[in-house]
Amino acid sequence: MAKYVYDFTEGNRNLKDLLGGKGANLAEMTNLGLPVPPGFTITTEACRHYLAEGTLPAGLDEEIARHLSALEATMGRTLGQTDDPLLVSVRSGAKFSMPGMMETVLNIGLNDESVHGLAKQSGGNERFAWDSYRRLIQMFGKTVLGIDGDHFEHALDELKGDRQDTDLDAGELQSLVETYKGIVREQTGKEFPADPREQMRLAVMAVFDSWNAPRAILYRRQERIPADLGTAVNIVAMVFGNCGNDSGTGVAFTRDPGSGQQGVYGDYLQNAQGEDVVAGIRNTVPLQDLERLDKHCYDELLQIMETLENHYRDLCDIEFTIERGKLWMLQTRVGKRTAAAAFRIATQLVDQGLITLDEAVTRVTGDQLAQLMFPRFDGGAVKNRIAKGMNASPGAAVGKAVFSSERAVELAARGEDVILVRRETNPDDLAGMIAARGILTSRGGKTSHAAVVARGMGKTCVCGAEELEVSVGERRFTAPGGVVVSEGEVISIDGTTGEVFLGEVPVADSPVVEYFERGTSAGAGEETGEQQEASHDDNLVKAVDRIMRHADGVRRLRVRANADTPEDAARARRFGAEGIGLCRTEHMFLGERRQLVEDLVLASGDTERQAALDALEPLQKADFVGIFRAMEGRPVTVRLIDPPLHEFLPDLTDLSVKVALAEAGSGEASDKDRRLLAAVKRLHEQNPMLGLRGVRLGLVIPGLFAMQVRAIAQAAKEVPGARPEIMIPLVAAVQELEAVREEATAILAEVGVDALVGTMIETPRAAVTAGQVAEAAQFFSFGTNDLTQMMWGFSRDDVEAAFFSRYLELGIFGVSPFETLDRDGVGRLVRLATDEGRAVRSDLKVGICGEHGGDPDSVHFCHDAGLDYVSCSPFRIPVARLEAARAALSDNESDTR
Amino acid sequence: MAKYVYDFTEGNRNLKDLLGGKGANLAEMTNLGLPVPPGFTITTEACRHYLAEGTLPAGLDEEIARHLSALEATMGRTLGQTDDPLLVSVRSGAKFSMPGMMETVLNIGLNDESVHGLAKQSGGNERFAWDSYRRLIQMFGKTVLGIDGDHFEHALDELKGDRQDTDLDAGELQSLVETYKGIVREQTGKEFPADPREQMRLAVMAVFDSWNAPRAILYRRQERIPADLGTAVNIVAMVFGNCGNDSGTGVAFTRDPGSGQQGVYGDYLQNAQGEDVVAGIRNTVPLQDLERLDKHCYDELLQIMETLENHYRDLCDIEFTIERGKLWMLQTRVGKRTAAAAFRIATQLVDQGLITLDEAVTRVTGDQLAQLMFPRFDGGAVKNRIAKGMNASPGAAVGKAVFSSERAVELAARGEDVILVRRETNPDDLAGMIAARGILTSRGGKTSHAAVVARGMGKTCVCGAEELEVSVGERRFTAPGGVVVSEGEVISIDGTTGEVFLGEVPVADSPVVEYFERGTSAGAGEETGEQQEASHDDNLVKAVDRIMRHADGVRRLRVRANADTPEDAARARRFGAEGIGLCRTEHMFLGERRQLVEDLVLASGDTERQAALDALEPLQKADFVGIFRAMEGRPVTVRLIDPPLHEFLPDLTDLSVKVALAEAGSGEASDKDRRLLAAVKRLHEQNPMLGLRGVRLGLVIPGLFAMQVRAIAQAAKEVPGARPEIMIPLVAAVQELEAVREEATAILAEVGVDALVGTMIETPRAAVTAGQVAEAAQFFSFGTNDLTQMMWGFSRDDVEAAFFSRYLELGIFGVSPFETLDRDGVGRLVRLATDEGRAVRSDLKVGICGEHGGDPDSVHFCHDAGLDYVSCSPFRIPVARLEAARAALSDNESDTR
Repeated sequence: MAKYVYDFTEGNRNLKDLLGGKGANLAEMTNLGLPVPPGFTITTEACRHYLAEGTLPAGLDEEIARHLSALEATMGRTLGQTDDPLLVSVRSGAKFSMPGMMETVLNIGLNDESVHGLAKQSGGNERFAWDSYRRLIQMFGKTVLGIDGDHFEHALDELKGDRQDTDLDAGELQSLVETYKGIVREQTGKEFPADPREQMRLAVMAVFDSWNAPRAILYRRQERIPADLGTAVNIVAMVFGNCGNDSGTGVAFTRDPGSGQQGVYGDYLQNAQGEDVVAGIRNTVPLQDLERLDKHCYDELLQIMETLENHYRDLCDIEFTIERGKLWMLQTRVGKRTAAAAFRIATQLVDQGLITLDEAVTRVTGDQLAQLMFPRFDGGAVKNRIAKGMNASPGAAVGKAVFSSERAVELAARGEDVILVRRETNPDDLAGMIAARGILTSRGGKTSHAAVVARGMGKTCVCGAEELEVSVGERRFTAPGGVVVSEGEVISIDGTTGEVFLGEVPVADSPVVEYFERGTSAGAGEETGEQQEASHDDNLVKAVDRIMRHADGVRRLRVRANADTPEDAARARRFGAEGIGLCRTEHMFLGERRQLVEDLVLASGDTERQAALDALEPLQKADFVGIFRAMEGRPVTVRLIDPPLHEFLPDLTDLSVKVALAEAGSGEASDKDRRLLAAVKRLHEQNPMLGLRGVRLGLVIPGLFAMQVRAIAQAAKEVPGARPEIMIPLVAAVQELEAVREEATAILAEVGVDALVGTMIETPRAAVTAGQVAEAAQFFSFGTNDLTQMMWGFSRDDVEAAFFSRYLELGIFGVSPFETLDRDGVGRLVRLATDEGRAVRSDLKVGICGEHGGDPDSVHFCHDAGLDYVSCSPFRIPVARLEAARAALSDNESDTR
Repeated sequence: MAKYVYDFTEGNRNLKDLLGGKGANLAEMTNLGLPVPPGFTITTEACRHYLAEGTLPAGLDEEIARHLSALEATMGRTLGQTDDPLLVSVRSGAKFSMPGMMETVLNIGLNDESVHGLAKQSGGNERFAWDSYRRLIQMFGKTVLGIDGDHFEHALDELKGDRQDTDLDAGELQSLVETYKGIVREQTGKEFPADPREQMRLAVMAVFDSWNAPRAILYRRQERIPADLGTAVNIVAMVFGNCGNDSGTGVAFTRDPGSGQQGVYGDYLQNAQGEDVVAGIRNTVPLQDLERLDKHCYDELLQIMETLENHYRDLCDIEFTIERGKLWMLQTRVGKRTAAAAFRIATQLVDQGLITLDEAVTRVTGDQLAQLMFPRFDGGAVKNRIAKGMNASPGAAVGKAVFSSERAVELAARGEDVILVRRETNPDDLAGMIAARGILTSRGGKTSHAAVVARGMGKTCVCGAEELEVSVGERRFTAPGGVVVSEGEVISIDGTTGEVFLGEVPVADSPVVEYFERGTSAGAGEETGEQQEASHDDNLVKAVDRIMRHADGVRRLRVRANADTPEDAARARRFGAEGIGLCRTEHMFLGERRQLVEDLVLASGDTERQAALDALEPLQKADFVGIFRAMEGRPVTVRLIDPPLHEFLPDLTDLSVKVALAEAGSGEASDKDRRLLAAVKRLHEQNPMLGLRGVRLGLVIPGLFAMQVRAIAQAAKEVPGARPEIMIPLVAAVQELEAVREEATAILAEVGVDALVGTMIETPRAAVTAGQVAEAAQFFSFGTNDLTQMMWGFSRDDVEAAFFSRYLELGIFGVSPFETLDRDGVGRLVRLATDEGRAVRSDLKVGICGEHGGDPDSVHFCHDAGLDYVSCSPFRIPVARLEAARAALSDNESDTR
């Protein structure tokens, strides 16, 4: 039979799955000999049984009764004993901390009789006893009985009038208890349960139920905590911080969770319970003041903090209560901390000899590193907020509002900071996005074009600020309250919060980005391994440097960049890229070259078409020369053109309207407009994502791929040490690849350049037939964006606005599969294709490109799946390097278990 | 070491893979003791080696030399022997017959010396000897040396003048030989090779090379013959049908390949070689005339034909030559026949006790059955052809040209036959397509909407007739030569050839369709097992009936129909459907109900939306009642609405133009047009195929699926014995299915109706996670159309015109994956999902719906993959029934091997 209840003496910190974080750590502290009130933990397994079956598991009641008896024996009192009652708290505690999400009930065991015993026990403190009783009814009523808390608050407020709660005397509190009992009767049709065991039993079930409260579900979804873990319940003998001025309660950190600095950090509140601190009814004092108030307890606490930090080998966060001069530990856990503190603490602990550098790497995350890379607004500045959108790409940006890509480029060229404001962005806005300090859109979600591209660039972006009406034509937007912002007016946007401010808000640059921009190889100055006199930023950069250097030493996955221009490539190098995994060539057909694409499309024969291609070739060659130079002999994977050609032409509807109006005499349209309209109609596709693109373009338009391959080969010949790799997009069958590969290798041979020829694996069919495809491919690069689209059957452009929020709400996925690689679906094919490809060609190089390459969870997947590299946008490279190391270290961890 | 050469005495008819069809059958006849000229066969394996490596395999030359020596010994002459030469033919012969596609060279062994020996051998027939020699040079020059045949033809014509070739005398032919040798010298820079062994060796390689001649590649692609089989080569001692009037050559069939009737069928040409028959230089005589010309040979031939038919147990086609009164068999094979003959011969052979009914089923194909179901134009009629398009859906149709669906319905209602003519069709044309006798489009390929829907209906369709300019507005089309056809003028279209005729061409209805329309269970009258005096059609129908009855008894796969209306359902029943596998509900939102969809989309709140749904519910319920009644207690799988809602709204571009013109004062637009435009813009999707459709609609639009499920349940309650199965489309994750399933089962319980709830497997992710999906699905139905689109990453609508022809040309696929299920890609996932789904739910019902369900090859795949049923359009049901039986029988065949 399962064991559902563990005394604190029976557990330890490794049993978090079963006992929850709180229970496991209470047991750990108990076994360390620290002063923990006695108690026991009901396991998460019991909770899971309860949630699945709707009843407590058989035998649990008896098991609880047995442990309660032991507790009563230890304490020398019984639960609800009228003259000297044992009171207990019933506290939730899941494996992962979900602060404030679940329920806790204190003072279980009080009723109309035992309240007198409590008064006696507390030296005749009638006020304390009745206050405890009314707190029980209030908490129990709200949490266990589901009564709207406002009823109780309202009754309390009415009684208090203008007074503080401490001004209420015992008689008033006794009458409040009666009022509260009346509320329970009125709201539930039943009496408040006087039986302490029934109180406890109901409270346990209420805590279990709170696992599935809407806010808890939402929180788990956001934090990616599995929905099926359940919570444990801790039954703990009550200790009271509200027995008088020799009592109190507080929280402490073994070092500063904000900066990582060592010292005494925390808050203390005299004559109060923990819930009072949370409610903020009186101001706390700094923990240091406890030394003055209760030197004995203070010294004991500092001693315990040192014990805990050495034992946990990490920053601990602690809750404690002092009951009439006696210190009790109510909780400890490895404490949350800011990103900066995480890096500093990790290296400090190395210096103290508590952890190894390997462990230090596991103590920080890619998300934390990413946070450190974004600029921030000065916290103290005065701000005039005019709207709030989605926090699409973090950071802080200030600049003049501009409404077109051209204008953004123009002003930026004059050295002005601009914010590009659009209803939504498209690939044509790329130049403007690059030129701008930040991007603000009124439409689109977190995976809209603006958001994705901005995150890729590490550029601040607020998107979907629907309160704004953007009029690109009039070069202005209107915010609620009639605020009109015209071109040239300064705005500030916070990509971390989604806020939009009028005017300039002061910004602080990220020292970590400055460090990366200096080039990783340059390092961060001397590392001494000692705490030095230096600025906070300097210490942070040193910590980051130390961890990144170590990370690079332990990771197995290589990290490449998605970079399309020499500038991007150079930045990628500085950020540590070991090559380019995806150089898209689409932009090489944009801008003034659009004209040539139009010529190509309108070409009436081989000669005209070839002329357009011939004109493009030297331009593209120059592009490649720049990129190869920037990469200094590292591999550059060039993807031949992928999007359908009509993407380079004017929009069908716009052009149709223009021509129709012109024909009705209400506008103008050139002869070329008319010819273009015919071409656009001819090339129009119902589903361009599933249309004439990728390898199909290469097979259908003679000379197109050949032009690109020749440009690459010629460029490679010109740059000593260049290592081009030619990547064919959207292959679904090996035959497609064979046809293109043949042409490409002939051109390479003709120019006299060596290059690998490989393929994207981005159609499910390519993955499923990877064994065949590998016969013709020297490398695979998983295009997980397209693969996700085709596996799920939805396109990112179309579905996000339409139903992603609803899907998150329904729990159909906890996170967008475009953000984090979907292991069960896409991931399964990635593994299958990797294994079957390598079975055919043992030296097949396998990587991933696309947004997932810079996502921490996806990097771990790629490591586990045995890929050779991930490729991501330059700004995500440090994140990928760090997460690749963490993935490698977590292998070791499993090895040694 | 491999054996590359087989003497005719060493082979047999089961070695077609190795010896090719011709070689295997020559060996078989040799071993039957029939008069076959001696010879040997070089294997396909040698050919494959040659094609892969570019050289003949090591040892082959020696092996050929050994077999040639044996042949010389048998014949008592040596190759090229000057006084009495052995001559041989070098004949191609692949596993599958590829008539006229590959090369043959006769008279190998002649040169300036041996030509005199041949003259002596033939009793001093100098003319014959020189004619044989010039034929060798001509054939060899063209086939082996690659000289344009016109050079030789030209020289011959010049020599002949106005005379017949038989008028040329020996001297003239001798001078022609010199001329020919001059042509060889001039064109190749070399002498015609005099060495007979070199002639033979070069001829063998030329035959091998001819495997990859463009016409052969094209033929194989059309006939779906694998490209890597290679051809065998037969070296056969020459016999001459052109030695005088006691010689000749002919072809014979053991029964009529056109009708299947028994008797003597064939042609004979006196004093000629086989090539002369092909070239048609003189008229042949009926084979019966041979009795008069050479009674002895005639009797022997009839005897041999009987032997062969009894031995092969099938219709044989035979080539023979008579050399100076001696009959020689040059070739035999199981003969090609028409579809009607196939059925009649199969049942006749059963009656003769030569084959079993099981074998009879394997002797006919679904394609042949389908051919029998289409109406045909009277072959003898005078026709005025005005254009040719693609033969999209076979049959013959005559009617008045109409240019809109409404007009088609209107005229058809008056009892008139119409042909719907459109540039291309869309789902709105459905009513018109149903009403029309045939469909003609000027755009779109074989998998365009018109083609697919027409094939599904068994309706004649010619599509992509690009010569036609269709003006829907002016209700007319223009054909080349200025022919203008206006509404109401009669045209005839032949869906089997793609031809379009002006005026009425007489049509013959298919007796087989009439038979099926009577209902399979009704049978085709008494079966006697004997050849009766009855019309050709009656005999055909009896044969079909007998084979179909037997097929239904042996097949394991069930066959269901894709049917959306009571009429379709009733026809499906008559054609033998065992249920409906796919009842699409899209059409239940079309027609006058479009108005309600617009209300639904424009609804400003829950109440308006629900009102629109409430109005739809009774209408859809009535639809379901009709369908359930028609199916008389058989299962009906209803797919909830799948397409995006904007498909039911006006087109974005059209509406934009309309509103823009109205605003410019050049047209009119209503207020509703403006509101609709806003809605259409809001709902506009870049890639509707990957947009808000299927299960997503159900999850995002409250009440939509519920309305449909309630309509189904209410209808089922009203029709005793109704067996609805509710199918959720486009599921990608089990969570989606769970959410919808929960709502559906609640409604079913509320109404009190039992129904299975299952899902389409049409996203690759659903297939890959089938184990999860099966937890919530009671059945799977593979939607292989969408699955193909998403696996390959191309949409049928967009890609066919753009690149399918190019892909077929490049050999990237031999047949469209939308036509025949792609086994390596889509098929692999179908197997995986079936296996993993059943592992979780052992009674999971698994079927396939969509175009592939009626495709013979795909039906075999479904049988092999262990599916429970296929579902296809009513017209394809007999095909699927037959092919399911053939698949089951081919299992047995493998079992007994």
